[in-house]
Amino acid sequence: MRRILIGVLGPGEGASQRDMDDATLIGELVAKAGWAVLTGGRVAGVMGAAAKGARAAGGLTIGVLPTADIFGASPAVDVVLASGLGEARNAVIAQSANACVVCGMNAGTASEVALAVRAKKPVVLLRSDEITSKFFRALDPESVRVAMSAGEAIEMLRGLLTAGSGPQPH
Amino acid sequence: MRRILIGVLGPGEGASQRDMDDATLIGELVAKAGWAVLTGGRVAGVMGAAAKGARAAGGLTIGVLPTADIFGASPAVDVVLASGLGEARNAVIAQSANACVVCGMNAGTASEVALAVRAKKPVVLLRSDEITSKFFRALDPESVRVAMSAGEAIEMLRGLLTAGSGPQPH
Amino acid sequence: MRRILIGVLGPGEGASQRDMDDATLIGELVAKAGWAVLTGGRVAGVMGAAAKGARAAGGLTIGVLPTADIFGASPAVDVVLASGLGEARNAVIAQSANACVVCGMNAGTASEVALAVRAKKPVVLLRSDEITSKFFRALDPESVRVAMSAGEAIEMLRGLLTAGSGPQPH
Amino acid sequence: MRRILIGVLGPGEGASQRDMDDATLIGELVAKAGWAVLTGGRVAGVMGAAAKGARAAGGLTIGVLPTADIFGASPAVDVVLASGLGEARNAVIAQSANACVVCGMNAGTASEVALAVRAKKPVVLLRSDEITSKFFRALDPESVRVAMSAGEAIEMLRGLLTAGSGPQPH
Repeated sequence: MRRILIGVLGPGEGASQRDMDDATLIGELVAKAGWAVLTGGRVAGVMGAAAKGARAAGGLTIGVLPTADIFGASPAVDVVLASGLGEARNAVIAQSANACVVCGMNAGTASEVALAVRAKKPVVLLRSDEITSKFFRALDPESVRVAMSAGEAIEMLRGLLTAGSGPQPH
Repeated sequence: MRRILIGVLGPGEGASQRDMDDATLIGELVAKAGWAVLTGGRVAGVMGAAAKGARAAGGLTIGVLPTADIFGASPAVDVVLASGLGEARNAVIAQSANACVVCGMNAGTASEVALAVRAKKPVVLLRSDEITSKFFRALDPESVRVAMSAGEAIEMLRGLLTAGSGPQPH
Repeated sequence: MRRILIGVLGPGEGASQRDMDDATLIGELVAKAGWAVLTGGRVAGVMGAAAKGARAAGGLTIGVLPTADIFGASPAVDVVLASGLGEARNAVIAQSANACVVCGMNAGTASEVALAVRAKKPVVLLRSDEITSKFFRALDPESVRVAMSAGEAIEMLRGLLTAGSGPQPH
Repeated sequence: MRRILIGVLGPGEGASQRDMDDATLIGELVAKAGWAVLTGGRVAGVMGAAAKGARAAGGLTIGVLPTADIFGASPAVDVVLASGLGEARNAVIAQSANACVVCGMNAGTASEVALAVRAKKPVVLLRSDEITSKFFRALDPESVRVAMSAGEAIEMLRGLLTAGSGPQPH
């Protein structure tokens, strides 16, 4: 069965506790919705937290690592792709996700969000600050939404799915 | 649970019927062994046949497409990654697979096999002709084996797994 | 002689006339400074304008196309790399540039700027609006500067070069 | 002026002295023909030798490194692209070259040759052994030629250029 992939994006090493808590909950809710979690594969920060949350809820987790080997991969990722592409792997994640949820922000995350917007993917920024929200919404107000809680983010994704205008099982 | 990924490599459009029959059986046997099938994602040729065989046996299938959209993806692939990388996606497959089985040969397949050998992955060439076998075995006699049936190929992989010297769940 | 590469980043089809005029002038000034211009290779928008400006001033121009063939390449690009990587080529440009100048903004450009910041490259945003400036400066205030004219942007790059703290001939 | 790019392919660390001597001479002859040399960018083996030969003859040299930084780059490369793509950069080289000359063989080189054949680029194997010649010629007898000296390889490229059927300034 073709799986719907929800990219959960956010900082690795520099993630805040709140970003990781959000990502864990997003992972859990994505899994409970029957979708798979797609991350950058590493154990660090938001990537590891999202995979952990999804795994705990019995969901499928996929990670696209920047490295060509699997050191640093999250143990909660079921399908590890050792891309070897470095930061270029961000494009693979952005294009492969049916939709993305963003927990926190840094330069790497910003590149993923921009690439997802470029690929016309629905993106939900979770608790983003005003500058970040305005910047990405100016790039494409149709693609980019802001949610104030993990639950609200999932409801947005569900609405997009049900409406048939958003993340399709591709 | 970290999944063992078996790359099933071979021609797309130009695949022979025997290559596709082999790939279907390999897919089935890989699934029955509890491993996941990793392909180039397309419905054409060996890629589609391997995914179909694995799907029919209840296995998990992952495909890394060359395109940034999902047109041409095999309906039997569960997790579609729309890499957008073109032929550079061959490196992602070669590096991500724990081991590879090769059904048939063309230039694209040759690049994947070479990249898998370069990444020190065990590669089983199924029914390869003498020139092909000699060429790849000369690149690395440790990595490259030749099997004369799908069953023999799977036994080789099982041996490598059991021995702990080959494809590990990474 | 190892060439200093200045990435000139900005929209393709949607570029404004002012963005293209800025890019043409940046290309010219980069060439006169003895540096090479690095772009996304296409003839459209800021990419084509920057190459044209540099070529007219006798400079060397390098372009990294998203496609695997050369259709749509700027005739003013001397060295065309047909990457075939799609948007993942943005990472190649960001990592290869010694420094970047940005004329205009869209989602693709935002990904390049974010990847350049991620790679700790000096980035000069030319006439960027307040939201854009604040967003990228928040990602890394050390890397990101804002200039109000092409001449000012080039002076900033020159200062970074002379100071030895910025774009080195790598 | 759009530059014709001749990929010079071969082993890095494991290159034989003869492979490196051939690559140096190929680099020199490519430069004298007015073409640019395109390599994997590193100083090691055939890559470094080809760049050195071209540089000594006043030619332009371009290198696409696997790494995202420039450590290990040949000092004889004028334009260094720090791709960060790992082995996936082989596809960028194969697709960007107008034609390729191959000095020596290992798994990485084999992937580049296969990708060049896949992209329908003329490939000249220099002094290749019988198995290697037969293997690649079987993939595409139109694309793949064998030469017994650097001079013969260059004459083949020149013929392809003059005939207008081969490497065009793209």
